[in-house]
Amino acid sequence: MNTFEIEEILKAYAENEISTADAAAKIKNLSYENIGYARVDHARAARQGFPEVIFGQGKTREQTVAIFEKVAQRAPNVLITRTNAEVFGEIRNVQTDAEWHEDAKIIRLFRDKTELGAGEIAVVTAGTSDIPVAEEAALTAETMGNRVNRIWDAGVAGLHRILSEREVLQSARVVVVVAGMEGALPSVVGGLVKVPVIAVPTSIGYGASFGGIAALLGMLNSCSSNVSVVNIDNGFGAGFSASLINRRQES
Amino acid sequence: MNTFEIEEILKAYAENEISTADAAAKIKNLSYENIGYARVDHARAARQGFPEVIFGQGKTREQTVAIFEKVAQRAPNVLITRTNAEVFGEIRNVQTDAEWHEDAKIIRLFRDKTELGAGEIAVVTAGTSDIPVAEEAALTAETMGNRVNRIWDAGVAGLHRILSEREVLQSARVVVVVAGMEGALPSVVGGLVKVPVIAVPTSIGYGASFGGIAALLGMLNSCSSNVSVVNIDNGFGAGFSASLINRRQES
Amino acid sequence: MNTFEIEEILKAYAENEISTADAAAKIKNLSYENIGYARVDHARAARQGFPEVIFGQGKTREQTVAIFEKVAQRAPNVLITRTNAEVFGEIRNVQTDAEWHEDAKIIRLFRDKTELGAGEIAVVTAGTSDIPVAEEAALTAETMGNRVNRIWDAGVAGLHRILSEREVLQSARVVVVVAGMEGALPSVVGGLVKVPVIAVPTSIGYGASFGGIAALLGMLNSCSSNVSVVNIDNGFGAGFSASLINRRQES
Amino acid sequence: MNTFEIEEILKAYAENEISTADAAAKIKNLSYENIGYARVDHARAARQGFPEVIFGQGKTREQTVAIFEKVAQRAPNVLITRTNAEVFGEIRNVQTDAEWHEDAKIIRLFRDKTELGAGEIAVVTAGTSDIPVAEEAALTAETMGNRVNRIWDAGVAGLHRILSEREVLQSARVVVVVAGMEGALPSVVGGLVKVPVIAVPTSIGYGASFGGIAALLGMLNSCSSNVSVVNIDNGFGAGFSASLINRRQES
Amino acid sequence: MNTFEIEEILKAYAENEISTADAAAKIKNLSYENIGYARVDHARAARQGFPEVIFGQGKTREQTVAIFEKVAQRAPNVLITRTNAEVFGEIRNVQTDAEWHEDAKIIRLFRDKTELGAGEIAVVTAGTSDIPVAEEAALTAETMGNRVNRIWDAGVAGLHRILSEREVLQSARVVVVVAGMEGALPSVVGGLVKVPVIAVPTSIGYGASFGGIAALLGMLNSCSSNVSVVNIDNGFGAGFSASLINRRQES
Amino acid sequence: MNTFEIEEILKAYAENEISTADAAAKIKNLSYENIGYARVDHARAARQGFPEVIFGQGKTREQTVAIFEKVAQRAPNVLITRTNAEVFGEIRNVQTDAEWHEDAKIIRLFRDKTELGAGEIAVVTAGTSDIPVAEEAALTAETMGNRVNRIWDAGVAGLHRILSEREVLQSARVVVVVAGMEGALPSVVGGLVKVPVIAVPTSIGYGASFGGIAALLGMLNSCSSNVSVVNIDNGFGAGFSASLINRRQES
Amino acid sequence: MNTFEIEEILKAYAENEISTADAAAKIKNLSYENIGYARVDHARAARQGFPEVIFGQGKTREQTVAIFEKVAQRAPNVLITRTNAEVFGEIRNVQTDAEWHEDAKIIRLFRDKTELGAGEIAVVTAGTSDIPVAEEAALTAETMGNRVNRIWDAGVAGLHRILSEREVLQSARVVVVVAGMEGALPSVVGGLVKVPVIAVPTSIGYGASFGGIAALLGMLNSCSSNVSVVNIDNGFGAGFSASLINRRQES
Amino acid sequence: MNTFEIEEILKAYAENEISTADAAAKIKNLSYENIGYARVDHARAARQGFPEVIFGQGKTREQTVAIFEKVAQRAPNVLITRTNAEVFGEIRNVQTDAEWHEDAKIIRLFRDKTELGAGEIAVVTAGTSDIPVAEEAALTAETMGNRVNRIWDAGVAGLHRILSEREVLQSARVVVVVAGMEGALPSVVGGLVKVPVIAVPTSIGYGASFGGIAALLGMLNSCSSNVSVVNIDNGFGAGFSASLINRRQES
Repeated sequence: MNTFEIEEILKAYAENEISTADAAAKIKNLSYENIGYARVDHARAARQGFPEVIFGQGKTREQTVAIFEKVAQRAPNVLITRTNAEVFGEIRNVQTDAEWHEDAKIIRLFRDKTELGAGEIAVVTAGTSDIPVAEEAALTAETMGNRVNRIWDAGVAGLHRILSEREVLQSARVVVVVAGMEGALPSVVGGLVKVPVIAVPTSIGYGASFGGIAALLGMLNSCSSNVSVVNIDNGFGAGFSASLINRRQES
Repeated sequence: MNTFEIEEILKAYAENEISTADAAAKIKNLSYENIGYARVDHARAARQGFPEVIFGQGKTREQTVAIFEKVAQRAPNVLITRTNAEVFGEIRNVQTDAEWHEDAKIIRLFRDKTELGAGEIAVVTAGTSDIPVAEEAALTAETMGNRVNRIWDAGVAGLHRILSEREVLQSARVVVVVAGMEGALPSVVGGLVKVPVIAVPTSIGYGASFGGIAALLGMLNSCSSNVSVVNIDNGFGAGFSASLINRRQES
Repeated sequence: MNTFEIEEILKAYAENEISTADAAAKIKNLSYENIGYARVDHARAARQGFPEVIFGQGKTREQTVAIFEKVAQRAPNVLITRTNAEVFGEIRNVQTDAEWHEDAKIIRLFRDKTELGAGEIAVVTAGTSDIPVAEEAALTAETMGNRVNRIWDAGVAGLHRILSEREVLQSARVVVVVAGMEGALPSVVGGLVKVPVIAVPTSIGYGASFGGIAALLGMLNSCSSNVSVVNIDNGFGAGFSASLINRRQES
Repeated sequence: MNTFEIEEILKAYAENEISTADAAAKIKNLSYENIGYARVDHARAARQGFPEVIFGQGKTREQTVAIFEKVAQRAPNVLITRTNAEVFGEIRNVQTDAEWHEDAKIIRLFRDKTELGAGEIAVVTAGTSDIPVAEEAALTAETMGNRVNRIWDAGVAGLHRILSEREVLQSARVVVVVAGMEGALPSVVGGLVKVPVIAVPTSIGYGASFGGIAALLGMLNSCSSNVSVVNIDNGFGAGFSASLINRRQES
Repeated sequence: MNTFEIEEILKAYAENEISTADAAAKIKNLSYENIGYARVDHARAARQGFPEVIFGQGKTREQTVAIFEKVAQRAPNVLITRTNAEVFGEIRNVQTDAEWHEDAKIIRLFRDKTELGAGEIAVVTAGTSDIPVAEEAALTAETMGNRVNRIWDAGVAGLHRILSEREVLQSARVVVVVAGMEGALPSVVGGLVKVPVIAVPTSIGYGASFGGIAALLGMLNSCSSNVSVVNIDNGFGAGFSASLINRRQES
Repeated sequence: MNTFEIEEILKAYAENEISTADAAAKIKNLSYENIGYARVDHARAARQGFPEVIFGQGKTREQTVAIFEKVAQRAPNVLITRTNAEVFGEIRNVQTDAEWHEDAKIIRLFRDKTELGAGEIAVVTAGTSDIPVAEEAALTAETMGNRVNRIWDAGVAGLHRILSEREVLQSARVVVVVAGMEGALPSVVGGLVKVPVIAVPTSIGYGASFGGIAALLGMLNSCSSNVSVVNIDNGFGAGFSASLINRRQES
Repeated sequence: MNTFEIEEILKAYAENEISTADAAAKIKNLSYENIGYARVDHARAARQGFPEVIFGQGKTREQTVAIFEKVAQRAPNVLITRTNAEVFGEIRNVQTDAEWHEDAKIIRLFRDKTELGAGEIAVVTAGTSDIPVAEEAALTAETMGNRVNRIWDAGVAGLHRILSEREVLQSARVVVVVAGMEGALPSVVGGLVKVPVIAVPTSIGYGASFGGIAALLGMLNSCSSNVSVVNIDNGFGAGFSASLINRRQES
Repeated sequence: MNTFEIEEILKAYAENEISTADAAAKIKNLSYENIGYARVDHARAARQGFPEVIFGQGKTREQTVAIFEKVAQRAPNVLITRTNAEVFGEIRNVQTDAEWHEDAKIIRLFRDKTELGAGEIAVVTAGTSDIPVAEEAALTAETMGNRVNRIWDAGVAGLHRILSEREVLQSARVVVVVAGMEGALPSVVGGLVKVPVIAVPTSIGYGASFGGIAALLGMLNSCSSNVSVVNIDNGFGAGFSASLINRRQES
């Protein structure tokens, strides 16, 4: 809801095209559609550069499919995150070009593949078990118009693994680093590159990893100044922020 | 230490200009200078686009001044963060153009004012007490070549305050949001803009704010997808990451 | 057990209608009935304006049904919270006018629909997943004689959703706000109204939401002065307190 | 900023009294005044029924006095909380009828003593050490137009102390209970009355009280359904919410 | 292994009945029997006044039965705590007079019913859900030779319930109080009696009860000086300590 | 307030010696005296076997002295805990036989030295730094009529130190064990004796001792069944409970 | 990747056996093999004295078997930790001399049984439930060429159990102590020996043991100076570190 | 107290050189001297290979000096840790060859400089602020007869700093790594060497470092298998354990 839209309504009102009450109502209703248990947010694309993403967790299969259908009518690209194969079974019935990504637990509708990024996004994991979260980040970034470089299993216990990828890392516009356990990899990567690093702690680990808290604290306390952090296992948020960072400047 | 540098040394070695042992040593010593209690890192500027920043906290006045002098010989712009007026007293003796910023507790040497940013950086605070941390972010960003828009005291208890700044926010390339207490402002700002938001929790608050933990958790759990977070009170890190995000693309 | 009741017994005793020992016993036994594994509290309605509510969690089906029958003999309106459809199956056998509310996991006997409230109670959720907790609050309030306005899915990431409901909010006598994740909505609503706000953190979220702790801390640290908080997912408590706030003053 | 105000501006605009740009600006500027490091919120009284309260903690003496002067010009009653005698020394110079409350660390300007409450507010403490927080609540409530009943030192280790005040408690419209250590008093009081109870945990205690966490958790888990909770030591918030609960219904 | 036993061996050794090496070995082997995966502790009865109690949790059915058989050969009374009906099925085959207590999940062999206590032990619960833990305490105390008074469902939200049991409480030699949620009951009981109170927090509760932490902290911070605390849900420990307190003084 | 007292009043009332209102008032006022900021609890000695103990922390010097004087008029033995030498300076002026115990920070008036205990109380510390807390326990127990055996600096890193005191420990009626750091000593002592052990965690330690939490958790999880725990540094509570355990049975 | 290896490549390059680009590539690729979802680390044996250990948790059966086959081609001894009998079923098909250890959930290929240790390693548990973690340590140590002494069920509640093993403990080169609950055993053992002690907290316990946190904190705060700690339940790490400590000095 | 000593006493007793009571007493008194507030532990050197170390924190100057004098009479090498210059002023008066180490806050008496280690100990810090803790480790190790290699300021944000020291690290028998903030350095070092690594978290850091908890958790969750951890800031414990690891095998 920007100033331009308000001025449009004001002008229509000034020219007596709409009543005072209507003008007030129009301002209210510009931006979303209330469908009872959810308010579908048609203004978000304008505000954030991307259509509605459906967070699958905690929604029933019926709810998820219904919302998907509504959103898919308007948006070329749609993501359902934290979902499962059963939901995909139903989605495929109504939208045959939807894709299922087992690793990331993501359903994707990917119709507009315009490239929007200024450079590349590198996505790195410390271990093999961090790959599902990293794939969530990578798929999100690709769907938002970015080229993505995946570097898996390059944790700090064998430094040569990450050092040998230094040039790939240094050519990226932004790096997403996904790690569990002690969460040390973002600090190491942060010291190797001069671009922003988005760190994603994962709940991988055991004992005193406390479901990702150890990794989260490690990343927040990183001695590399170019590291910022998202929530535990939040690959989607990391891919989203990285995409905005990489967005070409004409926007 | 990039491939190019290694190849240079390899060539010199191949042409018998240097011995085998020397070649190995040169590879090791390319990048920093060991001065006993600290290793001054001459490679960091190349790696991260900015000279050494001196973290003042936990260093004696003598140590801080000594390191400053060493760094100021090579770098046009220098920051000492988390320092105090006494240190500044001594710095001014050796470097008359250094500045003291009381709010942010920063000493700055700002000789190269080339603008490097693609757009503007907005820095927002929820309350008046958050200003010191926000100034640390703003000064860091300015010293790294960015134009900064300051928006102070725009917390969510009086929403009209942040809503009235919407256009300023929406014209920024990246927004830094600094908030204590419940840390709700980044979520609100994140919903208003389509650029990355760096959230900085502050230790402002009382009772169950637990020195910033409440704000930190609030920001990590933000329902806005474009928010990433730095450590409590870490204005410097936020300003640093924001600068890298805003960096013009020729780098 | 109020002064009036004591005085009644004292008078009977003074008139030799009861013995000294009986008088002491009567004072003791005025107020509850000990049925072995539970003390059914007949004085609570007098004390708090509402009959016994049965907390279903952690009770067997047999226990719940037995207590329900006992209570339903005396009280027109009864709630069983945190229960399930199996219990309802048995309840319906003995009480055909009982209702089952799937969302809220509540069984309700609602025979006395006298309106007792001075105004309306608004119940708001940040997201769709918060609805079950909010329904527990709304049903509780309705059963206690209040008109309730439901506003679902109005979280702060899309501010226009809550702003467009401002007038509804501002016409309420008290507002219940239910939110998970960062728990920012009560602060925003608190700033929009001049009535008390009861905030309910929910366990909705992931990663560092820690089962509702992030939302709880956010609400306790709210920068809006009119917010008080109940336990995580405690929709019943919020509806109960809101009902007492809205109670017409003749009581 | 309510609908009425918007319609007023719309009408002026329709009658060409103001330009399109002016109309948009007016909507923005209705509600607060930006004085650099703070936005003084002239709309808050309309929104919440009370003028700006100045939170003294973390502000310099100069800032506090300056804000006080600005606010005192418009509002009859002003509170500065968490302040000290030095600030009062300066305030008294500019406002001779200001009062200093040592216990509560509050400066108060109390010129409009209209009673606004429907009934009385009882404020109870568990121990003597809880009195400062309780006084903050009591003074806030009195300044907002309420009669207050103070009941000090009535903790649960000597139950007869609180039981003997039962009638006073039962005649209140709302009860504020202030307690540290195990925070058990609100549960007990909540069981004695049929009105809302606002519980305030205090940081009084030692060892595993953890600065009020034990009391806070105790209150959140209260087995009495009419208890809601504010932040540790937040007497002001409790007094504020209690005042809104007690507000006479014509508002 | 007391001084008397050592002196006995020393004497045998002095009279050349045993060799030097044997004397040293005897001192070592006095007190337990190593059966591979467990060391059965025959000295414990002498040390603590009660035979080995078998903690069933985390042991297989076979292990539990095997240890039971070994212990039952020497001790008249045996308890298996935290076990289940399947284990009882096997125990009953080998020991027909064993009892199964469903509530407490205890198998008991109770052959020596000599009364050893000086007075009575009262065991109190705040709610119905706390009964299993309380039964563990009560059965332990009975098996150790004590008379036990059970008072169930007397929580502080309805104070009259506990007040009416005052005389029973005041006649006990020691009181065990079992409570979940805010854990306030031990403070109230502690204030009513002049004997030691053993408080047992239970994991009953929800939301911010954190599996019993809220109750545990409440009890540790009790404002009643005669309260000490055992681990969450540790009814056995409470019954054990209470039994030792109540032990008649000839020991 | 026991049944006997109530019956006395009832009889007086029945015989028309007092009015109905007076009878109700008398029941209320039996037990304490309200002196404004504190309710002095004259019934506590009857209830708990000991006069009012004054908790010095968080009270001003004036308040402490005033309460002391009031209490000393009725009670032969008085303790002020957590106080300081300045308070003692004033106390000595009004009560020349008061004693100052520097280690324990206790002021004691000890006029009635009747022995009330059935046996001895052993008080043990793990280290030298735990002595102040242990002295608080020992002085409390002595003042309550017990003989006390002090065993200092017998931590588990040198087991022979505690083993050599086994006989002293085994002859006690109850043992208080005071330990910081890992808090292991109560488990070891608990295994050596067959009487109750009261464990007191202290805030002694550093790093991950977290002000006594490590010791507290260690003690709560003790593998010895006869251990119960009081709050961190709560020597007074341990001495108080131990005294009640040791109390001769005629009470 | 040591200096020697680099010099070898440098010499080959100097003699024109390899090109400049090849020399750079060779340095990079010396040390691991990238097989997509994992980088198999052939350099680790050289670096740490032991081949790749496969952490089974969080890997599919297929992944585990595939990695096992790859590793078993080069390494004589292989461990799969945190695995299960199903995986073993498949492993046995491809490698008939693999062993399954039910207690420790370990699959082991043990072909090279050369003894590498200077002395013996003692592995001690506090209780029977700690044996699985202890077996993980013991098997790891044995597979790495050490003799291991197992001492099970020697917790501190019956001190004579550990005291009787003093000589075995004192003859070890390093001791691994595995304990849950309060984690006191490492302190006691640490005081009995003059060699390093590796403490392993286990998640055994209940209530306030918090899944091993109590034991972990107890061990970190050990009053014995020779104790260091690994993660909760990390038997493998303890066995690994102990093996390196015991490694004969020719390395 | 070893078997040999017991047998000696047994023999003397058998030959009637000592009485039965004396034999028992001798066994008790072999090993320490009770001087009231402390038990000086003369057996510790025999048990652990090093004389009594005096932990200065929490002891008065007088106590520290007195204990030092007692210990210095028997032991050639003495350490007082966590002490200050004032204590050293007094120590120097009685022992002129004592040394003061300002960085580590250690007083050392170092008269026996026999080398006892098999190899060298490397001590590494991540930053300059970690040096005091590292010096405590290094001085402890040197005083226990080891050669120590110090490597300061080699944190992971500039990896080349630690990589260039690889050969020094790889030649050590054991490595102590001291780091604050995210505590990532031990993982990196652990991956570079094949010897045990003792990790020491420091309280250096700010915000969510929580006084060293972040570093502690990072180290406990290290992905390098050869890392074990001591308490926050516990340089002494790390130096002590490292010395025992490095001890030559004839001991």
